[in-house]
Amino acid sequence: MGVNRVCIVTDQVVGQLPGMSALLNSVNHENITYSVYDSVRTEPTDTSFMDVIRFAKEGQFDAFVAFGGGSVIDSCKAANLYSSNVNADFFDYVDAPIGRGMNVTHTLKPLIAIPTTAGTGSETTGLAVFDYEANAAKTVIRSRAITPLIGIIDPFNVMSMPTSVATYTGFDVLCHALESYTTVPYNERRPRPLNPRDRPTYQGSNPVSDVWARHALNIAAKYFRRAVKDNDDTEARSQMQLASCFAGIGFGCAGVHLCHALSYPISGKVKTFRPKDYQVDYPLVPHGLSVVITAPAVFHFTSSACPDRHLEAAQILGADTTNVRREDAGRVLSDTLRQFMYDLGIEDGLEALGYTTADIPALVQRTVPQVRRYRSVVLSTVIPEFRYAIMY
Amino acid sequence: MGVNRVCIVTDQVVGQLPGMSALLNSVNHENITYSVYDSVRTEPTDTSFMDVIRFAKEGQFDAFVAFGGGSVIDSCKAANLYSSNVNADFFDYVDAPIGRGMNVTHTLKPLIAIPTTAGTGSETTGLAVFDYEANAAKTVIRSRAITPLIGIIDPFNVMSMPTSVATYTGFDVLCHALESYTTVPYNERRPRPLNPRDRPTYQGSNPVSDVWARHALNIAAKYFRRAVKDNDDTEARSQMQLASCFAGIGFGCAGVHLCHALSYPISGKVKTFRPKDYQVDYPLVPHGLSVVITAPAVFHFTSSACPDRHLEAAQILGADTTNVRREDAGRVLSDTLRQFMYDLGIEDGLEALGYTTADIPALVQRTVPQVRRYRSVVLSTVIPEFRYAIMY
Repeated sequence: MGVNRVCIVTDQVVGQLPGMSALLNSVNHENITYSVYDSVRTEPTDTSFMDVIRFAKEGQFDAFVAFGGGSVIDSCKAANLYSSNVNADFFDYVDAPIGRGMNVTHTLKPLIAIPTTAGTGSETTGLAVFDYEANAAKTVIRSRAITPLIGIIDPFNVMSMPTSVATYTGFDVLCHALESYTTVPYNERRPRPLNPRDRPTYQGSNPVSDVWARHALNIAAKYFRRAVKDNDDTEARSQMQLASCFAGIGFGCAGVHLCHALSYPISGKVKTFRPKDYQVDYPLVPHGLSVVITAPAVFHFTSSACPDRHLEAAQILGADTTNVRREDAGRVLSDTLRQFMYDLGIEDGLEALGYTTADIPALVQRTVPQVRRYRSVVLSTVIPEFRYAIMY
Repeated sequence: MGVNRVCIVTDQVVGQLPGMSALLNSVNHENITYSVYDSVRTEPTDTSFMDVIRFAKEGQFDAFVAFGGGSVIDSCKAANLYSSNVNADFFDYVDAPIGRGMNVTHTLKPLIAIPTTAGTGSETTGLAVFDYEANAAKTVIRSRAITPLIGIIDPFNVMSMPTSVATYTGFDVLCHALESYTTVPYNERRPRPLNPRDRPTYQGSNPVSDVWARHALNIAAKYFRRAVKDNDDTEARSQMQLASCFAGIGFGCAGVHLCHALSYPISGKVKTFRPKDYQVDYPLVPHGLSVVITAPAVFHFTSSACPDRHLEAAQILGADTTNVRREDAGRVLSDTLRQFMYDLGIEDGLEALGYTTADIPALVQRTVPQVRRYRSVVLSTVIPEFRYAIMY
């Protein structure tokens, strides 16, 4: 690529992995100068984004490499975006209504993403998610311009994931696939754009995203439990890493819906919850956990919109759907998900994350802007979802 | 795109379709100047490529639109490639040993491909195939640089395909999917490149191409017969057009093998065969026909390399594979293909295309360079394939 000076972004945990040494050896071998930023925050915030952006601006880099999970890759995307246009205000590219949602018109530097988890699919998408602290809710920077140029999907980088990381990130994959498969189809969204090129990045489910969603579900059905139960199961972990990437290609153009919309305040308003195996000194609801915790309630609710797809998903995930009535599709898919969650020892509902019924109004209030964005539900439907989600 | 002067490439048959009027209206609406080249030859030759290249050089265009089948799209790719670098010799970019197989290092103009058949997948690939008249065999220009920037897959453009065009192009889809699914896996090719970036465009079957190949087979199993038997079956023709595109994405990175290698002399050395429904005044073996005619023999032969994949393909295409032994995988897949060919009224073996046993040595001689390229078989295997293919 003719690169001379590269910014390597990682965090203090994955920065110690053997893959990091391989990366540095490779860069040294090509006589490329580099600086390492290893202070990415797990579940990044606007403050932590600002810090890596400052580092990137000072370094005057001509390429970026992200080595880590979704938090690292997303932080690296932000660093690339803002350091390539020093005149931009941070909120210019943050989604409305929090930011201005402006189109990216400047040219970014090449970004190579090397995922060390098997969940976000961030190596395939034009999204960078962060907690906006003032609102205690996640929001997003969304532009095809920040999509990594290359993703390097190397199974050796996910062999070291602790059990709980493999679990939560795996549920993120499952929800990416299920949500993108059941979201509003691209040709049923209203109002229709006058020109197909004006479709948003998240254009709704479509014949291409459907292929990836179904394929990711098939992989997860076969390998998710194995990848969690045996840290040394190379085949299962490789396959889940592919599923993460494939589901990312799918939802990256189709979009996600309620599980993700509801997850943003669940993680943003965290009080005291600290997940096992995460080496952080602050309360944290890992993204995959905040997403899947409402999933049984969500798919029970959404099934009436496309029961056949809910039934097909349940069947792929192992449910016996012979003689199941279409009106029971949501129940069957929810039960199948609950079984996965139970088998893999996921926390038991919102209560286990430290929330009570009294928190619902605040969670709802911070979900509504997300839901508007996804256009798939209206306010009246959000409240019951949280109620159900208190106990999945 | 900021385009001012566009070259529209088509042929005299599809140039009369309603889609062409829509295209011209659209270009006029944007006040873009254009010239139409409508003399593309079905199954193009080096002479016909030269003609469209001359047109493109004279026109000084800043963008290209191809409206047609594989012959049109491939001709447009050649026009774009050579008119963007007027100093190049025609053989610079033609595959070795006929050409020099040089890498494309100059920047091409944007090319938008609008397929009017459902077969080649040319809108997704970096290939332009032509008959090299001096050798009476097909050869190819191969570079990611000539891949269309955008493909517009509009089902209305394939509703007018005559029955035989739908048949032959559909078999091309089937073979793209079957060959790319059964070609040597990317991680078993030898010698291994020192760096993954040095893998050739056709890198062998891989986890991504496998998804597209299987998906295309699933669509073909369900819709191919319907798309041929009823010209007005919009759903079936739409789906076969998607299958063509999807199989193209797959084989465009995995590659194809024997059916395609054997097909090049079969079409290149055509004597008197004239297919039904093709409005041409010269003998011609349509590409899909020249490919599928050896397919039963080919997959019977290749099955021992990966019997499970041959069995899976047969099952997707409708065969009952319960209790079938792995050593019978090739026979079962071949029988399944023969049934498709019989049902859709394909010509009965090489004899029906005008060849006899006496032609085999010449066909073999012109296949060997292709086969070397695909690295999947050696000379000794080519001769029996043609013997079997005399009667499928």
